[in-house]
Amino acid sequence: MSKKPLNIGMIGYGFMGRTHSNAYAKVNHFFDLEYQPVLKAICARNGERAQAFADQWGYESVETDWRKLIERDDIDAVDICTPNNLHHEIAIAAAKAGKMILCEKPLAMDVEQGEEMCKAVEEAGVANTVWYNYRRVPAVTLAKQLIDEGKLGKIFHYRAVFLQDWTISEELPQGGEALWRLDAAAAGSGVTGDLLAHCIDTALWLNGGISDVSAMTETFIKERVHSATGEKQKVEIDDACAFLAKFDNGSLATFESTRYARGHKALYTFEINGEHASIAWDLHDLHRLSYFDHRDESTVRGWRSIHVTDGDQPYMGQWWVPGLQIGYEHTFVHQVADFLDNLAKGQPTGPTFRDALETQKVCEAVLTSAKSKSWTSVN
Amino acid sequence: MSKKPLNIGMIGYGFMGRTHSNAYAKVNHFFDLEYQPVLKAICARNGERAQAFADQWGYESVETDWRKLIERDDIDAVDICTPNNLHHEIAIAAAKAGKMILCEKPLAMDVEQGEEMCKAVEEAGVANTVWYNYRRVPAVTLAKQLIDEGKLGKIFHYRAVFLQDWTISEELPQGGEALWRLDAAAAGSGVTGDLLAHCIDTALWLNGGISDVSAMTETFIKERVHSATGEKQKVEIDDACAFLAKFDNGSLATFESTRYARGHKALYTFEINGEHASIAWDLHDLHRLSYFDHRDESTVRGWRSIHVTDGDQPYMGQWWVPGLQIGYEHTFVHQVADFLDNLAKGQPTGPTFRDALETQKVCEAVLTSAKSKSWTSVN
Amino acid sequence: MSKKPLNIGMIGYGFMGRTHSNAYAKVNHFFDLEYQPVLKAICARNGERAQAFADQWGYESVETDWRKLIERDDIDAVDICTPNNLHHEIAIAAAKAGKMILCEKPLAMDVEQGEEMCKAVEEAGVANTVWYNYRRVPAVTLAKQLIDEGKLGKIFHYRAVFLQDWTISEELPQGGEALWRLDAAAAGSGVTGDLLAHCIDTALWLNGGISDVSAMTETFIKERVHSATGEKQKVEIDDACAFLAKFDNGSLATFESTRYARGHKALYTFEINGEHASIAWDLHDLHRLSYFDHRDESTVRGWRSIHVTDGDQPYMGQWWVPGLQIGYEHTFVHQVADFLDNLAKGQPTGPTFRDALETQKVCEAVLTSAKSKSWTSVN
Amino acid sequence: MSKKPLNIGMIGYGFMGRTHSNAYAKVNHFFDLEYQPVLKAICARNGERAQAFADQWGYESVETDWRKLIERDDIDAVDICTPNNLHHEIAIAAAKAGKMILCEKPLAMDVEQGEEMCKAVEEAGVANTVWYNYRRVPAVTLAKQLIDEGKLGKIFHYRAVFLQDWTISEELPQGGEALWRLDAAAAGSGVTGDLLAHCIDTALWLNGGISDVSAMTETFIKERVHSATGEKQKVEIDDACAFLAKFDNGSLATFESTRYARGHKALYTFEINGEHASIAWDLHDLHRLSYFDHRDESTVRGWRSIHVTDGDQPYMGQWWVPGLQIGYEHTFVHQVADFLDNLAKGQPTGPTFRDALETQKVCEAVLTSAKSKSWTSVN
Repeated sequence: MSKKPLNIGMIGYGFMGRTHSNAYAKVNHFFDLEYQPVLKAICARNGERAQAFADQWGYESVETDWRKLIERDDIDAVDICTPNNLHHEIAIAAAKAGKMILCEKPLAMDVEQGEEMCKAVEEAGVANTVWYNYRRVPAVTLAKQLIDEGKLGKIFHYRAVFLQDWTISEELPQGGEALWRLDAAAAGSGVTGDLLAHCIDTALWLNGGISDVSAMTETFIKERVHSATGEKQKVEIDDACAFLAKFDNGSLATFESTRYARGHKALYTFEINGEHASIAWDLHDLHRLSYFDHRDESTVRGWRSIHVTDGDQPYMGQWWVPGLQIGYEHTFVHQVADFLDNLAKGQPTGPTFRDALETQKVCEAVLTSAKSKSWTSVN
Repeated sequence: MSKKPLNIGMIGYGFMGRTHSNAYAKVNHFFDLEYQPVLKAICARNGERAQAFADQWGYESVETDWRKLIERDDIDAVDICTPNNLHHEIAIAAAKAGKMILCEKPLAMDVEQGEEMCKAVEEAGVANTVWYNYRRVPAVTLAKQLIDEGKLGKIFHYRAVFLQDWTISEELPQGGEALWRLDAAAAGSGVTGDLLAHCIDTALWLNGGISDVSAMTETFIKERVHSATGEKQKVEIDDACAFLAKFDNGSLATFESTRYARGHKALYTFEINGEHASIAWDLHDLHRLSYFDHRDESTVRGWRSIHVTDGDQPYMGQWWVPGLQIGYEHTFVHQVADFLDNLAKGQPTGPTFRDALETQKVCEAVLTSAKSKSWTSVN
Repeated sequence: MSKKPLNIGMIGYGFMGRTHSNAYAKVNHFFDLEYQPVLKAICARNGERAQAFADQWGYESVETDWRKLIERDDIDAVDICTPNNLHHEIAIAAAKAGKMILCEKPLAMDVEQGEEMCKAVEEAGVANTVWYNYRRVPAVTLAKQLIDEGKLGKIFHYRAVFLQDWTISEELPQGGEALWRLDAAAAGSGVTGDLLAHCIDTALWLNGGISDVSAMTETFIKERVHSATGEKQKVEIDDACAFLAKFDNGSLATFESTRYARGHKALYTFEINGEHASIAWDLHDLHRLSYFDHRDESTVRGWRSIHVTDGDQPYMGQWWVPGLQIGYEHTFVHQVADFLDNLAKGQPTGPTFRDALETQKVCEAVLTSAKSKSWTSVN
Repeated sequence: MSKKPLNIGMIGYGFMGRTHSNAYAKVNHFFDLEYQPVLKAICARNGERAQAFADQWGYESVETDWRKLIERDDIDAVDICTPNNLHHEIAIAAAKAGKMILCEKPLAMDVEQGEEMCKAVEEAGVANTVWYNYRRVPAVTLAKQLIDEGKLGKIFHYRAVFLQDWTISEELPQGGEALWRLDAAAAGSGVTGDLLAHCIDTALWLNGGISDVSAMTETFIKERVHSATGEKQKVEIDDACAFLAKFDNGSLATFESTRYARGHKALYTFEINGEHASIAWDLHDLHRLSYFDHRDESTVRGWRSIHVTDGDQPYMGQWWVPGLQIGYEHTFVHQVADFLDNLAKGQPTGPTFRDALETQKVCEAVLTSAKSKSWTSVN
């Protein structure tokens, strides 16, 4: 059974570089696919570290200039794992070069960039996807199935939070390789683009469009040493952001994200309340889905804790046996598996750039609303 | 050991009439107090049902006109358990008659009424308290102690929800004895005064004043049969309400309440994130407090589920033995116990009318904000 | 509506004296019954303390000799709350005097005593019940209903533990008012009669008879000061006991109890696994029942956490509203309510002395098995 | 950085073949090691399926006779993933051929076989380990650390269960590729060797030796069609097994395993109660450890739910970032990582054959005790 190779050129080797590389390396061991990713090249400015990364993961070659990578004929797909401020330029160049693109989230620094990127990939006709990986937690995919089957009925409420606690210390600098997420020039925004973007992507997927938002943001620590200058500089990102939202389907929502919620490392939770049933999920126990069905017999009604490890639940037939959980990394494997499968079928793989642009629009409306202290329309 | 009697005259015999009567009947069995409540009179328009209630609970007499009750010399304290639209008139008359007042929440229909009520009790110099009972869940009182001890450090975030699902059916009428909470004329507002008022009272107590809010409300079912007319009428109350808030101490908050959250009967939860520690609580398991302390040794840090049943935890020394939980009704017993104890000491019992007025101000700002679709100052 | 009085004479005023007194005082406020308990007399050797207890709870009179209490014509029912070593003598005398008997658990010091007690009440034809209160936790009563409805199908497994941690300190003495449970002369046994007896009563009720057991016991702290002598004496009770059991219905069981399980105050849990469904319960969250039904649709199967607070669940229609939990003390109210209701109907109230004798037999077989280190038949 | 190759020859390609292959493929991406496994050969009787497996996982060659595999000079280590009845013969041959051995659990069909296998690897001086993978769940490894640091103090109690529900249907045959675990000839025993062996391995590691056991077993479904004959045959394995145990350190234990616990797929749980602290763990949420420390301040004592995802917790520094969980498969990666690291250092990797022999002895004592219905010593 020989597979079609899909030659990957990856730009950036940070946390996301590792999650993607692992996904490419594992996917064919677990999924039966026509295509097989080949780790052709890794690109980063620091050639020595890029080489070490290549050695560790088995990349065949190293580039230090992403433009060179994009020009290479032996690259089919470009995977963009850089800080957010480079997505736009790289993606447009890669599209022009006819490469497929797998781009880290958020899509862009703002809606304008995002629109240009959509236009570029659509004009070039190249396959494209954005790594909003949480759609492919099996429990979240199951939530989508239940909603699509109509199990919840009319939706009244959506609520989501993404809570972390890693920037409470004043000693933490902004900027640099590990901490570019605190530097507005590299990240665009703080928790809005980093964490709420995940919440919004899931919400749009599960519950449809958002029409209006009212938001507030806060920067608790006003100045931090910048790693580039060694000087204390004003912190320009949002440490925390919360917003009210109205969905097109008439449901109400609250969203909140912060890096100042002591005790939570990566607590992304959402809950959806429908006429007949409700659903809740929690990234800290990602292998479980909570489900309440009002149609159950009244004396034994209760929230069900579904251990999503059975073969008839999304993706789980490919892994181990019932009761044995998978983890965070598998969401990326699932996205690669779907991408390769869709490639064989000539289908797009959501979230596409176009899908991710919708999330970008909500993020932008949220930041505008927080600044103007007023309700703001999306679009 | 002979106790001083405190003669109670209660107005209204609904759900709250039962919780208060139970508290008066039990309090001296568990708390060592100078005073003992005496169930002197129950007052309600329907004399037959009032008599049945008196028989069941041991009230010595029945009145059908609250003005008569207030005039009686043998009544020391008036307990107001009527629908919200009567609080103002009764309280002012009772204060003028020199009666102590224990008033159900919310204090009033609006801030103006509340201010007049405060003025009345303060001018009369009568003891007064409002039944925001959740302050006296032992786990919540423990939360207050931990905050006052400084265990949390600077507070960054507060979030609270109060979720129910009992009005999802379109068949439910508005108005009448059991359903006056759906009738704006009797209740003033929907979930804002009924449920969010609880969340706000706790929040102000634990985290200080709220300065600004941005709110949205929704009425999902637009028309319901009114029990008074038998006709379909516009529903004027809010079925759901969510708001963003800023506290005086710089922390950010989200609040939400609804009666359309399938699967939740009375899910009042709050969480507070501080610099050093966080706290969370949940009415569905009211005997537990969740606590995370970042100062714990790093390898064994985790959210602690504190089973608040030990003798050195608030109020619990008066009840059973460690491990054996109390329930909802005990919060009212605690409030009576504190009221009687403070009476002996000549001290006020929070929340006083004045404290409850602050909650009323936030509720009014919330409703104003929702109507005007803009950030609104409290005060 | 005038009620028939049932004059109660209670012997002993400790922890159980309080739980029973509270039940008698409350029951008619919540249940509609023909009978009403009257707190006629409290009896204890220490007259001063008995008087204080009478004042606190409203007992009309005090006795210091239980024989006198039993002779009184104005006593209808005797409630035995003494240490275990007095149950036998008092119960037999009370039965002979034609009194109804409500006896604390365990029924007796051994099976022989228990058989004589059964004989006595049956010959006298007096109503009798034993305070195995956990049968009347609404969640446990619901479990019984589900089993009786056949929801579980054939039962394969039963497992129960009752874990405490209050005797780990070597400093704790044995004997005396508060600590008679550590004194074999007063208690008969340690955790077997105190805690496992509860587990066994529930098990026999839910799952039928136990035929054979294999047990082990341990006394971790070999000597403690005896409160009577002030001297260190050998500890004769069992600190911990675990046993394997076979039920008549073919199911297998494990039971364990200890006072050395750090972190658990009163963690009584049981789980039952049937062909179609399973049930689990936990005293630390007594208002919840866990339920798994294999007949649920496979993708949304999961353990349900049933919040047993709805009006159509056992006993809960008498209390508050859905979502609001009751606690430990209510189990005793339920037992009194059932006793009074059955009295009016001329029916026995389980567990009767005869039912409790079955539990005594299992306890005795367990202790015999532990001593002989061999499998032992019950009967 | 060039690695030393370690050429692997794997025998068997079932569920365990997949977990091991995945571990070999991933380990060097995450751990910095001197050695790198090379997937040299896969061996199975069915050559076609073996080839498919080789294609999927990247094995360089295929063998259909395990004796040939063992003779190959280019194989450094033999990985035994066959049914239990082949472990003995293969391991002894492999040891004689000077191969390192990584053997699936349980070590052997009985103690006698196990002793011969120990002798063989020790005489040959070859590295050896047995795949009791749960030792290397980070939460379990953390438990071991806490115990070794003395955090628990004297241990009083140990309890473990391993509950499944996959053989409740009578329609399930015994024997054959997927169901050899139901065939006593291939598996040796039922849940005792399959599931309890895991519980025992962990227990011996965490709490030291077991001296005596009293066990019971049951086979609920007495006859099943055998896949080899197509005929109904007596089922010879144990469907369920429970036992009491005494540890050398004086602590008491209960162990139970079954495949008839409806609602549990792979619920392996253990709890350890010590003088100062207690620990509990659950395979269904394997990334968490529950911990109670009595030395915490009394008002805020509670069971901590430790989310074992931080860099200073065992193995987790190699994976993602705090808050992001790993799953079942990672336990095998950890075992390979430790094996390779120890190889470089010339150290053994527990559990060795000798360690696993101790587990075998307990299993054998358990089965003997169940048969003889008497307490049985573990040598």
